[in-house]
Amino acid sequence: MKRRQFFKAAGALGAGGVAATALSAPAISQGKIQWRMQATWRENSPLLWTGAKMVSEMVEKASGGKLSIKLYGAGEIAPPLQLMDAVADGGLEMGHGYPAYWAGKLPAVQFFTPLPFGLTTQEQNAWFRFGGGQEIADKIYGEMGVKFLPSGNTSVQSAGWFNKEINSIDDYKGMKIRSGGLGAKVLREIGATPVQMPLGEVPQGLQTNAIDGADFVGPFNDMAFGLHKVAKFCYWPGWMEPCGVLDCFINKQAWDDLPDDLKTIVQLANETANSVVLSEFVAKNAQAYQTLQTEHGVEMKFLDEATLKTLGEVAGKVIAEAGEADELSKEVYTSQMTFRKQVMPYTNTSELAFMKARGLDFPYGL
Amino acid sequence: MKRRQFFKAAGALGAGGVAATALSAPAISQGKIQWRMQATWRENSPLLWTGAKMVSEMVEKASGGKLSIKLYGAGEIAPPLQLMDAVADGGLEMGHGYPAYWAGKLPAVQFFTPLPFGLTTQEQNAWFRFGGGQEIADKIYGEMGVKFLPSGNTSVQSAGWFNKEINSIDDYKGMKIRSGGLGAKVLREIGATPVQMPLGEVPQGLQTNAIDGADFVGPFNDMAFGLHKVAKFCYWPGWMEPCGVLDCFINKQAWDDLPDDLKTIVQLANETANSVVLSEFVAKNAQAYQTLQTEHGVEMKFLDEATLKTLGEVAGKVIAEAGEADELSKEVYTSQMTFRKQVMPYTNTSELAFMKARGLDFPYGL
Repeated sequence: MKRRQFFKAAGALGAGGVAATALSAPAISQGKIQWRMQATWRENSPLLWTGAKMVSEMVEKASGGKLSIKLYGAGEIAPPLQLMDAVADGGLEMGHGYPAYWAGKLPAVQFFTPLPFGLTTQEQNAWFRFGGGQEIADKIYGEMGVKFLPSGNTSVQSAGWFNKEINSIDDYKGMKIRSGGLGAKVLREIGATPVQMPLGEVPQGLQTNAIDGADFVGPFNDMAFGLHKVAKFCYWPGWMEPCGVLDCFINKQAWDDLPDDLKTIVQLANETANSVVLSEFVAKNAQAYQTLQTEHGVEMKFLDEATLKTLGEVAGKVIAEAGEADELSKEVYTSQMTFRKQVMPYTNTSELAFMKARGLDFPYGL
Repeated sequence: MKRRQFFKAAGALGAGGVAATALSAPAISQGKIQWRMQATWRENSPLLWTGAKMVSEMVEKASGGKLSIKLYGAGEIAPPLQLMDAVADGGLEMGHGYPAYWAGKLPAVQFFTPLPFGLTTQEQNAWFRFGGGQEIADKIYGEMGVKFLPSGNTSVQSAGWFNKEINSIDDYKGMKIRSGGLGAKVLREIGATPVQMPLGEVPQGLQTNAIDGADFVGPFNDMAFGLHKVAKFCYWPGWMEPCGVLDCFINKQAWDDLPDDLKTIVQLANETANSVVLSEFVAKNAQAYQTLQTEHGVEMKFLDEATLKTLGEVAGKVIAEAGEADELSKEVYTSQMTFRKQVMPYTNTSELAFMKARGLDFPYGL
């Protein structure tokens, strides 16, 4: 994820984007409210489109048409990189994207993107709901003029595709690796060169050795782009992206003016999208993970403990530094780190210990 | 979980339960539909009540009162053990409980309860939505005359509280352990004596050595019952219960007659309850896990690999046998084991490998 869909979408856009301010106020016809939502992804982008589409369809159904949300693909109304401004200005009512895209506007937003060695999806959800995360997100997104709702998530992503082996932290040195966000900052610290590159150019980049490796998403999306044909190794675990929440953001005024019943429907639809996208991610990646190995002979490789330990230490520094950017960053950093410190021992004892036990060698099932 | 809330609730009920068939058909007043939902838990039972309450409140809000669902605690309308019959017969429209409670009616239902060494919550959700689980659940619950919706879940539970150490599989021999469901069958196979005991009697049972150990829920609920005062050790990981979906079940006719918009609202409310309960479980258990150690000096212990491996092997046999009970059991067993076989390698590579990496010793955060 990160900036890649952006470049692609932006590239496809050209100069035809409609200026946000030229757009009309929310349409109301015969007591029915008509909203428009644009995604930062193209129509039918695998996994990414699911959440936005579900929100649109479920709201229409649940409200009996009292609120309809017409869905647009990347660039159809506003250039994707300007989508937040377009929504905040009331050019359209809703946007669907990825928090990392707005980090340039407000650095604190990057704490809603996956943090290297940070919270898992299950923990992030718990933080949003019971650890103060939603309140802080509302504050931060409020600064940008919108209401925030989590609207999709991934499970742990992969550590990327490489044409060179990584047997120690030193092997990263000098490698050109497509990446973005806080993960890219960690890579720079250990001597690699992070490269920004549109999604669609990555296969060729790997094939021509313009890059030595690429952080992508997970088996399902990666396979669709044919990365297994141009890279030798797929590395795990995805230390850079243990989760990846998608954001639905709503013009503040439009949200405030929405009647309570429709507000609840919009919330329930996003809650549903949030967990259904995760389920789709898990199910499709599980399948693709198998296919990559059985049909395409991909070699799955694991970073060793010493390498991971160094990456973890560097990540800790990079994130602490990001937490110093401003007051909002400090607040969200403190909140998330406090939650992580408390939840991790429990997760290690419950989820992690269970998964380790289940992975022992014994006959079971089919 | 398992049968324990049952006994407690049943004990509190007395003979005052209203016969289901004596109840009236769904009430409709001024175009507004009024349903009734009973839970198998008492009002405000920690974590368990959250899902039922959310469904009731969210449906009311989202429908603008077009559908209201009045919520009753265990035994207020029907005895909890008879709740499925009461809902199927139309005595009330909705029930909220735990699949294990209906295993006596239809053995296949136990495949919606946590399977020892089975799917995690994240995987179970993916199975329901993208692995055919919802369809099979609708078929199985359809046999009982109701529509099924997942309506809450736990993360991995604990392996229970014990007053004797477990250093090998042999230490289980002769132990009297409060437990239920498929986990109890595994314990019997390895020479322990599973004991059925109401939730409220467990603390005294441990104190008087009537039992040597007890499978309970997790730190938050366990601490509320004071188990840390009467048992020496809390064991992990919870091999018996890696998840624990709660079920919302709806009278088939009432569901079929519900207008489409309200159907969607009921579904969205349950989807939301399903993930919010999980988040609450994670957040509150993380906190209680810490408190148990820092304030109450509880010793957390882990079963060793050899013990877990034997438990896993025995669990595999017990579950395979359960899958032979009848055609429906065979179908759901096959579906879930097929999904488990595909998803486990992916989970091990993504979630498990990440959590292991994150658990390495490096400075990070606060």
